[in-house]
Amino acid sequence: MKAAIVLLSGGLDSATTLAIAHSQGFKTFALSVHYGQRHAAELDAARRVAAALGAHEHRVMGVDLAGIGGSALTDWAMAVPETVAEVPVTSGTHIPVTYVPARNTLLLSLALGWAEVVGAGDIFVGVNAVDYSGYPDCRPEFIAAFEQLARLATKVGVEGGRLTIQAPLIMLSKADIIRTGLRLGVDYAMTVSCYQADPEGRACGRCDSCRLRRSGFGDAGVPDPTRYA
Amino acid sequence: MKAAIVLLSGGLDSATTLAIAHSQGFKTFALSVHYGQRHAAELDAARRVAAALGAHEHRVMGVDLAGIGGSALTDWAMAVPETVAEVPVTSGTHIPVTYVPARNTLLLSLALGWAEVVGAGDIFVGVNAVDYSGYPDCRPEFIAAFEQLARLATKVGVEGGRLTIQAPLIMLSKADIIRTGLRLGVDYAMTVSCYQADPEGRACGRCDSCRLRRSGFGDAGVPDPTRYA
Repeated sequence: MKAAIVLLSGGLDSATTLAIAHSQGFKTFALSVHYGQRHAAELDAARRVAAALGAHEHRVMGVDLAGIGGSALTDWAMAVPETVAEVPVTSGTHIPVTYVPARNTLLLSLALGWAEVVGAGDIFVGVNAVDYSGYPDCRPEFIAAFEQLARLATKVGVEGGRLTIQAPLIMLSKADIIRTGLRLGVDYAMTVSCYQADPEGRACGRCDSCRLRRSGFGDAGVPDPTRYA
Repeated sequence: MKAAIVLLSGGLDSATTLAIAHSQGFKTFALSVHYGQRHAAELDAARRVAAALGAHEHRVMGVDLAGIGGSALTDWAMAVPETVAEVPVTSGTHIPVTYVPARNTLLLSLALGWAEVVGAGDIFVGVNAVDYSGYPDCRPEFIAAFEQLARLATKVGVEGGRLTIQAPLIMLSKADIIRTGLRLGVDYAMTVSCYQADPEGRACGRCDSCRLRRSGFGDAGVPDPTRYA
């Protein structure tokens, strides 16, 4: 049975990605990374989602990314924006302040290490270029570059084995992601997307992530099962 | 003053790399990563080296890479080879068992995150393709691929800013590395290269790393200041 690492934050997108990996016949190794983010409630959600969807194994790894600061999600001194706040930069590009420095590079590196150990040829990641157009590491060209790197960086790559980065949500709207997950049996009540969920995993309903999620359910025409504080 | 992140393990190569970065006029942010490796004595060495060479800042980050196993350096159940032991693979390529899955990808990812936060345009890493020819992530093509990835993955890359991965030792022999470091004032007695140094940082004298280091001093024609157990 072919094996895949699936990055699982406990949010809506990664839960859907795990379900997609299962629908493609993969034996999944779900990896959650605790990198000093505020929303530890997401990790509890990840555990529930991994169990409910039948991941073969689930690991939580810790990285003290908070030590290097630089993002509202890892640095308690910065406020999480509740409006569509962005950091304007000189070139006209805009990057949200919730951007975590090099986050997806780091998450994929950890997934790559585990892929080597368990012999997984595929790594699934729930990045999305539609909702997160301001994040450089959510773009298809980033995923392609990481796949190229992975093939040069590893034993399996040197040996000419399979090493593929799968980002099945990358061009989907939130509504399409939700429709896909519902078709595959995802219970979104288990997932936590909020940037500042309370310890019980209840969402604030006000941050960017909450708003994107809520409008996704609206656009998909299905009830929003999110537990709000 | 231009800033650089320098990956600093506390070994001979990374200490030399830090000295090279200073010789090129960089204000350095030295980054040591504790990824569950046995040789925590290296981290003490890293602190001493960073202070002695005048790094602007030194951070130690923790990553529980040991949790995913797969290498003699992170998995206590595997023995550190004391002969030139390698894992033969079907293609004829040989990878040492001391290879840590995706290690340099992970280390560079962490460095990249910190580079974004402090606005560093250069990342120095002491990889070497001569002594570590069996490690896929010590090759020039790996470094080039990571640089390409870094430019796609980050704010500064999106904005067209400088982001360069410098691997100044990559084609040097151990003797050349030692000669370079001595010229730049590195005190190699402070550094620890041994895969299984004791808690006081004394080297075993038998592992691959000790042997490479010892023969480097011999080839360079200088006394070996290593403290052996």
